[in-house]
Amino acid sequence: MEITPTFKNPDTHEINARIDKIRGQMSRLGLDYYVSFSPDNIFYLTNFKNMVHERPFILVVTPKGPLQFISPLLEAKHVHARSVGDIEILPYFEFPAPKGKEWSDVFKQAVPAGSKVGIESVCPHQIYAAIEGEAVEVNLIDDARAIKSPFEINRIAYSCELITKAHDEFMAAAAPGRTVIETASAAQQSIIGQLLQDDPSYNPFCTRVGAVFQNGRTTFDPHNFSTINIAMEANGGPHLTIINSELSGYGAEVERTFFLGSATDEEKKYFDIMMEGRNLAYELAKPGTLMSDVDRAVNDLFKSKGVGDLLLHRTGHGMGITAHESPFLAEGCEQELQENMTFTIEPGIYSEKFGGFRHSDTIVVGKDGPINLTETPDDLDSLILPIK
Amino acid sequence: MEITPTFKNPDTHEINARIDKIRGQMSRLGLDYYVSFSPDNIFYLTNFKNMVHERPFILVVTPKGPLQFISPLLEAKHVHARSVGDIEILPYFEFPAPKGKEWSDVFKQAVPAGSKVGIESVCPHQIYAAIEGEAVEVNLIDDARAIKSPFEINRIAYSCELITKAHDEFMAAAAPGRTVIETASAAQQSIIGQLLQDDPSYNPFCTRVGAVFQNGRTTFDPHNFSTINIAMEANGGPHLTIINSELSGYGAEVERTFFLGSATDEEKKYFDIMMEGRNLAYELAKPGTLMSDVDRAVNDLFKSKGVGDLLLHRTGHGMGITAHESPFLAEGCEQELQENMTFTIEPGIYSEKFGGFRHSDTIVVGKDGPINLTETPDDLDSLILPIK
Repeated sequence: MEITPTFKNPDTHEINARIDKIRGQMSRLGLDYYVSFSPDNIFYLTNFKNMVHERPFILVVTPKGPLQFISPLLEAKHVHARSVGDIEILPYFEFPAPKGKEWSDVFKQAVPAGSKVGIESVCPHQIYAAIEGEAVEVNLIDDARAIKSPFEINRIAYSCELITKAHDEFMAAAAPGRTVIETASAAQQSIIGQLLQDDPSYNPFCTRVGAVFQNGRTTFDPHNFSTINIAMEANGGPHLTIINSELSGYGAEVERTFFLGSATDEEKKYFDIMMEGRNLAYELAKPGTLMSDVDRAVNDLFKSKGVGDLLLHRTGHGMGITAHESPFLAEGCEQELQENMTFTIEPGIYSEKFGGFRHSDTIVVGKDGPINLTETPDDLDSLILPIK
Repeated sequence: MEITPTFKNPDTHEINARIDKIRGQMSRLGLDYYVSFSPDNIFYLTNFKNMVHERPFILVVTPKGPLQFISPLLEAKHVHARSVGDIEILPYFEFPAPKGKEWSDVFKQAVPAGSKVGIESVCPHQIYAAIEGEAVEVNLIDDARAIKSPFEINRIAYSCELITKAHDEFMAAAAPGRTVIETASAAQQSIIGQLLQDDPSYNPFCTRVGAVFQNGRTTFDPHNFSTINIAMEANGGPHLTIINSELSGYGAEVERTFFLGSATDEEKKYFDIMMEGRNLAYELAKPGTLMSDVDRAVNDLFKSKGVGDLLLHRTGHGMGITAHESPFLAEGCEQELQENMTFTIEPGIYSEKFGGFRHSDTIVVGKDGPINLTETPDDLDSLILPIK
């Protein structure tokens, strides 16, 4: 697979190919319209990312002709400025509006009574309730997003390139006393600085740099990175870098467990078990394997090593126009892996006593297995950092 | 009204008073349960703000006893670390999960078949579909949030204090060539620096500093602040500061139209008309007035001045645990203003030729009218800045 990182916007050809995928499925399912409310799904089909506020933005995928986009009047020019492809804007003045001038009045014109309409699992109830026809819950856009085009892979590779560079800088600056705020600020400058240089018109509405760490006191609780008043500690147990970002609409993630000064024998043992699970996931993540089988094999390995009770999450998640999305390397996900899918691989184990152990990389599924887009050392020797 | 800015977290007493409001309404409507998915509404009743990802967090308000909170296992410790009040966590292992172990299985235990259940307008379809009883769309928590407690007003006043200081610094640094990135970065440092000093354990999951500007080329398109590669321009028409932030869970907004060097007679004319609309809104925003009447009066004034076609939005929006929420000073909102409601007042007019004109302030409705929480000069003389 040839991968050439790019920061370009999608062109009409790319957007139309995405729309064609949805229309093909609509036709197969006999749907007259498909209604999308998810800002990510709308971005996928339009390159326009709406700010989320109470005024609904609703995309109606028609069987042919332009997409119909119900938008607040306030945003019409903004939609024109950012969108790619053939879109007809159906504006409404405000939310709430007087009777007869509400978003739902415009919506009912776009989706006539008696239609058969596909809706997302996340479709808000008020939109579902405004459909005067048959509504079918089916996630056509989420499903289409699972397999990436060469353009998407190149965009994700670009995001991976920037965050991996920031991660290397992060590791180089690691030292006792260094704080989360310092880390986050340095990564922000590195990543946004490069993005701004490459694409001065990048879209901040789909750009987010997450770059924090946990120290040995907090890694046991892997989603509590809301605690930011912590610092790195010498010989302080497993620390974890977490860089998860979306850069002008395309995601990337890299994470490493590391130690400052030294690791104890117990910590090394847990690190090694985590690495065994990780290596197994890399071996198995090939086209044709069930996603559930990858996760089950990793979980079974952990159980056989006596750490089954230290599991808190699945092996990985999809990556694309967000940095965290469907499908999943999870026991509940019985889909086949296919070429050009992108995932994180990040099995982890978490002990209240010894802390948390996890690496994460962003990979694309190639013909023969995963191609890593976030290359940075993952071995224990490289990750026991000398104290400066 | 005595207002004392504070950055403290709510205590159990404050949280319980909020829950009591919801339970009172549930009882009046004969609801067995109320189901909340909105992360903002969940934060209001628990002080826990979840990161939004595909794993559902669902709060079930019971008629008595602890609230029930369906959460991913991964987040259980995080919920304990941040929440205030009596909460029972009902964990599920992962999303997706094998049959019988899914979030919906846990949900169905918490909300038994045959129950009468209140749901939000934004309730995702998949949760609505998991209710094996009668679902009633009613926004109890959003409605309860409209009238603020003294604690909430003091918290909002704190957020207003920090952003107003940042706004004054913003104006002091205004100069031709100054970029959006510079502005945003300076405000971020000022606001987060102070927050971090006051409350080192502030919650970044409900903290967001938005601090940008538009220049004379972009103010006509008021929600397109996705264009950040712009700079301030001498004698370049109406510029607009936009500071809208949420600081550890409580919102604030301040905005000013300003000029660098000079304003033309046309620009002064539009500025004065905007100010007339603004002054009228301030006069009318008193307890007992309908929100729709405030907006209609302002819109009618603009129409009488011949600028009705330059209207793009309503007069204002609610402010609270977010910086943009219900209820609205909008023609479609036929609710009475009440004491201790908080709003922005921000009528605006937008011309493709002459640019956009709007100020915004955060106010609390007092017995005799609005009390401004974001005091900073709003007159034209103060807002034509000398070129440095």
